[in-house]
Amino acid sequence: MRQKGNAGLGKKLLYPPVSTNKRNGVEMAKVKIGVNGYGVIGKRVADAVALQDDMELVGISDVVADWRVKMAQRKGYTVYCSVSDPKQIETMKQAGVNVAGTLEGLLRNGALDVVVDCAPGGFGVKSKETLYDKYGAKAIFEGGEKHEIAGLSFVCQCNYNEALEKAEKGNKYCRVVSCNTTAGCRIFHALYSNFKVPKARMFLVRRATDPVKGDSKGIMNTVVPSRLPSHHAPDVKTVIHDAIPDLYSAAVMGSHTMYHFHLYDITLGQEVTREDVVNALKNEPRICFVNTKDGVMGLGAIIEISRDMGLPRGDIYTIPVWEDFITVIGKKEVLIAAACPNENNVVPENVDAIRALTRIETDWKKSLEKTDKALRVPKTLY
Amino acid sequence: MRQKGNAGLGKKLLYPPVSTNKRNGVEMAKVKIGVNGYGVIGKRVADAVALQDDMELVGISDVVADWRVKMAQRKGYTVYCSVSDPKQIETMKQAGVNVAGTLEGLLRNGALDVVVDCAPGGFGVKSKETLYDKYGAKAIFEGGEKHEIAGLSFVCQCNYNEALEKAEKGNKYCRVVSCNTTAGCRIFHALYSNFKVPKARMFLVRRATDPVKGDSKGIMNTVVPSRLPSHHAPDVKTVIHDAIPDLYSAAVMGSHTMYHFHLYDITLGQEVTREDVVNALKNEPRICFVNTKDGVMGLGAIIEISRDMGLPRGDIYTIPVWEDFITVIGKKEVLIAAACPNENNVVPENVDAIRALTRIETDWKKSLEKTDKALRVPKTLY
Amino acid sequence: MRQKGNAGLGKKLLYPPVSTNKRNGVEMAKVKIGVNGYGVIGKRVADAVALQDDMELVGISDVVADWRVKMAQRKGYTVYCSVSDPKQIETMKQAGVNVAGTLEGLLRNGALDVVVDCAPGGFGVKSKETLYDKYGAKAIFEGGEKHEIAGLSFVCQCNYNEALEKAEKGNKYCRVVSCNTTAGCRIFHALYSNFKVPKARMFLVRRATDPVKGDSKGIMNTVVPSRLPSHHAPDVKTVIHDAIPDLYSAAVMGSHTMYHFHLYDITLGQEVTREDVVNALKNEPRICFVNTKDGVMGLGAIIEISRDMGLPRGDIYTIPVWEDFITVIGKKEVLIAAACPNENNVVPENVDAIRALTRIETDWKKSLEKTDKALRVPKTLY
Amino acid sequence: MRQKGNAGLGKKLLYPPVSTNKRNGVEMAKVKIGVNGYGVIGKRVADAVALQDDMELVGISDVVADWRVKMAQRKGYTVYCSVSDPKQIETMKQAGVNVAGTLEGLLRNGALDVVVDCAPGGFGVKSKETLYDKYGAKAIFEGGEKHEIAGLSFVCQCNYNEALEKAEKGNKYCRVVSCNTTAGCRIFHALYSNFKVPKARMFLVRRATDPVKGDSKGIMNTVVPSRLPSHHAPDVKTVIHDAIPDLYSAAVMGSHTMYHFHLYDITLGQEVTREDVVNALKNEPRICFVNTKDGVMGLGAIIEISRDMGLPRGDIYTIPVWEDFITVIGKKEVLIAAACPNENNVVPENVDAIRALTRIETDWKKSLEKTDKALRVPKTLY
Repeated sequence: MRQKGNAGLGKKLLYPPVSTNKRNGVEMAKVKIGVNGYGVIGKRVADAVALQDDMELVGISDVVADWRVKMAQRKGYTVYCSVSDPKQIETMKQAGVNVAGTLEGLLRNGALDVVVDCAPGGFGVKSKETLYDKYGAKAIFEGGEKHEIAGLSFVCQCNYNEALEKAEKGNKYCRVVSCNTTAGCRIFHALYSNFKVPKARMFLVRRATDPVKGDSKGIMNTVVPSRLPSHHAPDVKTVIHDAIPDLYSAAVMGSHTMYHFHLYDITLGQEVTREDVVNALKNEPRICFVNTKDGVMGLGAIIEISRDMGLPRGDIYTIPVWEDFITVIGKKEVLIAAACPNENNVVPENVDAIRALTRIETDWKKSLEKTDKALRVPKTLY
Repeated sequence: MRQKGNAGLGKKLLYPPVSTNKRNGVEMAKVKIGVNGYGVIGKRVADAVALQDDMELVGISDVVADWRVKMAQRKGYTVYCSVSDPKQIETMKQAGVNVAGTLEGLLRNGALDVVVDCAPGGFGVKSKETLYDKYGAKAIFEGGEKHEIAGLSFVCQCNYNEALEKAEKGNKYCRVVSCNTTAGCRIFHALYSNFKVPKARMFLVRRATDPVKGDSKGIMNTVVPSRLPSHHAPDVKTVIHDAIPDLYSAAVMGSHTMYHFHLYDITLGQEVTREDVVNALKNEPRICFVNTKDGVMGLGAIIEISRDMGLPRGDIYTIPVWEDFITVIGKKEVLIAAACPNENNVVPENVDAIRALTRIETDWKKSLEKTDKALRVPKTLY
Repeated sequence: MRQKGNAGLGKKLLYPPVSTNKRNGVEMAKVKIGVNGYGVIGKRVADAVALQDDMELVGISDVVADWRVKMAQRKGYTVYCSVSDPKQIETMKQAGVNVAGTLEGLLRNGALDVVVDCAPGGFGVKSKETLYDKYGAKAIFEGGEKHEIAGLSFVCQCNYNEALEKAEKGNKYCRVVSCNTTAGCRIFHALYSNFKVPKARMFLVRRATDPVKGDSKGIMNTVVPSRLPSHHAPDVKTVIHDAIPDLYSAAVMGSHTMYHFHLYDITLGQEVTREDVVNALKNEPRICFVNTKDGVMGLGAIIEISRDMGLPRGDIYTIPVWEDFITVIGKKEVLIAAACPNENNVVPENVDAIRALTRIETDWKKSLEKTDKALRVPKTLY
Repeated sequence: MRQKGNAGLGKKLLYPPVSTNKRNGVEMAKVKIGVNGYGVIGKRVADAVALQDDMELVGISDVVADWRVKMAQRKGYTVYCSVSDPKQIETMKQAGVNVAGTLEGLLRNGALDVVVDCAPGGFGVKSKETLYDKYGAKAIFEGGEKHEIAGLSFVCQCNYNEALEKAEKGNKYCRVVSCNTTAGCRIFHALYSNFKVPKARMFLVRRATDPVKGDSKGIMNTVVPSRLPSHHAPDVKTVIHDAIPDLYSAAVMGSHTMYHFHLYDITLGQEVTREDVVNALKNEPRICFVNTKDGVMGLGAIIEISRDMGLPRGDIYTIPVWEDFITVIGKKEVLIAAACPNENNVVPENVDAIRALTRIETDWKKSLEKTDKALRVPKTLY
């Protein structure tokens, strides 16, 4: 719920009030959403929900009262406390945050149709047990949680229908997978839906931490490998299941703060030309192209382009693939290099996951297009 | 000039068409502006000019046709070639840029009232000689050029009147000083205009290069000092002249890409309380406060806040000062720590410099307020 | 104690067996030393002690059994467990370390004359209470502990005599101050012992974490200020007491892993020429010069020079000052830029502190020279 | 030639004078070596040559006189000017370097049997034409030059015999391949010599620049891909020829300064157990193991271990492979993660290349062992 009279930054609302949601000319009740955890993902999901005409952002909840939560309040978001601890609420109030109540209070009163749980990884399990299960609330978890928390891992263009079917049978939980898994699923979907993919290897150079966390944590002047092979390939399988029978991944952490770098070595089920692969990627939603011939030599340029797009926070939601690096070895093996905008590429997936879980939209393409229009997800970057 | 039918990103214009400029109810001709050099500063100045109701962005000029210039075109800006070399123009056209002509052509035709020269440091001298002098055009230079190029170095709140007076006498050139000098002038102005400042030392930890340039240049895992003492104090004096008789600076380059860090050690001309200093800074335009108690521990948090503000590219234009670090030693010495948003804090200064140079506004406060309103320069960050 | 038959790396002992210690032709018993905590400082102190002919390294103690401790063992150092917990000892043994006993066992048996406590900051307090006090052992603490732990903070050239005097009165504890404080004390001593220093300001750009810790912690692409003013000036005063009446410091953490950068703004008690200052610094022990005209532009070059010196780990122990940056403002104010080799500049201080605390050498210059000869502390870098 | 009376650092020679070279009891003339270019590789090759009892370092040549060359002189190396330009020689002399003559003079007088050309990439071609060809000198080039410069690319354990055979036929040139290619060749040799390797993919996260160059260049907070596929696989083929028929590589530059990171995805020609692969790597020269269970989590720990080894500059020459990351997928595919000590792993190769090119040793294993003993190349790291 937006508070009246709070005009956000300056005199202008960055996000205009959501309009009435009409479907087939009939005015529909909006799905009521709460976002629990107002961090890197949570604040973006909150903004994204607020932009949808079939959703209403009832409020956000958190446990602290630093600049982040103060900005939420300034934007006009109603702030709740994630925990039902009076001391915590009092602490937040004394720090200057107008706490409207607790997440549990919202759930008890049936004020929320769906909670999007964007708390740090691992917290979701506890909230599921103590809150969502207890009050019978639908909930969406993020990639920091394990697949088992929901039994359903989601990437819109891969398995929206699976989510719909499970929801019909009473499933109340959905897990939006991590940024890396989401990016991999989009790339893989472009290829296995066109050519079959019997085998694939993915290699990731992960960013070390988020820019805002760089003030207190990170890694320095190093490369740190994950356990080999990494968990990314198994995580992709929670979404695409058996679409790629022989799938492995390796990952290292690099000494940078924004955007993961991905390299794919994919063996296709049929012979292709380079043009076939280019077209498959070009036609896939939420993938876009960059080129070194346009001066896009690394992540730095992509991030600058992202900022120049003018979207909030420089978010682009889509996966930039280096078009001029797409390489076909022999006739069936493809090399692809991509950037993964780790802060935001899962944001539209959360919006779609809400629609699938609540079944307010039963056509995945319509949901995807509606989300992309509302968020202004770009088809091309420049 | 905005091209018709070019709707920018998606279907929405990020920057709506400028409205008619009325002063005292009288419709005024807008000042016609060209921006030469569409890099980190140029692209921001172009956007800022396009937002002013008393200015018209005729076009931008550059010499390359990479993603940057393609984005300019996509925004609806008319693109010119900075040089009058047919080969260069042809190269740009073949790369997909619709080159409308040359900067020299614009000047020859009297299409520009003012050129804002945002070409890399040192190019300005040549352009001044071969273009601006030749065609009698007014020009604004950036801090990469020396004071002598214009004989007038500018920070709005310090010496708008000096610029007005010189313009009245026929001066056609103005230099907007560097981000560091601009930040220093704002901080110093807050203090010398209130308490006198007989002596000051400033120490800077500069960012090494811009994020977009980080793909190909920079420094790594080091600190690199400038010659000691650094040029910053003498540069501040080109703006504030003798306001601080004993002024020196030292600077190092740090291994980071965004925002300079500034530390000031200022001896005041009178005894003060800490509150006096806080108030002086609070009342100074284009300075704002951050606090460690709100979780703002370093540049990372300030940059994240900047992005969360929702302004284009995460620009904030104002100088964040750590309020809870303001320290008074004894009764006359003050320590101040500040961040300098190096990509954008000079942007509003360019807008004001245009007004001073063309004398379309003769009250510095009105210009400053008009600029800040158009750019949505925030008074507070969160 | 060096174990027989363990020849260190390859077939060569990196550090040859210590020879008999003769003073005035009389063979003296060597001071028996244990080093508790084998981290960045501890491993260096152990090596340094092993090189002194008036000291015997009885062993090192730690609580883990990773590659660090395995290297200690391979060097021939006897390894003890810092804690008297049988489980911990068993864990270390199972990881392949031949644990010879416990630190407490050594103390109980009077096997140690001095413990150099190089455990992480804060652990010293507990060890003092439960071990050193209990067994009446002399102990040296590092700069991570507070002054109060020993009541004596030490930098050889500043207050060796104070340490001697307190030792004579029964004092058993000494704190070698941090790398930054040590560097500051050396610089300040050069100046206050020659010219008096009524006022000084020091500004530090600290390294964020040690290279080896960069795999798991650090900061990224940022500058993070310490509380303003920083604790460094008060810490310097624990060593130099009232030598500089008006002394303040400020510090930030930079995004690099090796060597702090220091800037000093020092007001002298008398008029000087630049040559006076250069000579004062040139004649001061454990300070050396670098020059930008020799291509030493930043910390990177100094670190490379350090490595090229061929000393173990690239340690140089001395404070590089940029000679061509030494600047005299007016006649009494001096600007100095220096690098602080944070991993190793306190190492010789530990050796000297042992001598002062045990009074085996009562002339500070002789101790300093003896240490510097044994460690090959360079007078010049290139 | 070592200059008499120049005692290097302090009073101790870091590298003791080379002893007489006896082979089979017969005193042999030593091969006379000049090193052209005293940078990151050149200074290490010079030191390595000076340690061999069958070689004599006649001198080093360079074109500048900064701290690097001053340290060479201080070490006792005779310094020559790389070019025969009197002005350049004068400049070096005035900067304080005692220039003994020119590289051309040495060649003209037949003072050198072999020049090791460690000048920056690309300079070798010119020197070959104007100096080595002209004076009929044997020369070794580094990996910055193309294969064609020598027609022979060299890694000791892969093709020493090829170098011997070509030398017998009069070949005078040899190219020691880059650090990355050298590392790849060692890893691949371990596998193809044991199991055959029909197919392999290698992925590299390169360091961006050398630490010493980090003061003025580098990349910042980014990942920058090379053209895809990268040149590394073709370069490996210049050494191992058709040993791996299907070989491709991809590379990115990471935001760190030391050690490349390598990931190998290798398909073997026969079924293997993990133990087979571990043993093959364990038995391969110039490869060693690290383990995460010993706390070696990333490049930072390996670099710290390297420093702790006590070898000059922290050089280790060998390729650290994460033993506990070695993974067999199915029965024939192997994943391997390794670090590449880019500053020094080619140094022993240069020594071996001299022996092969001059045929003073015709058994590759004897050369390798002799080199490794002289350089103290470690078999294990801790």
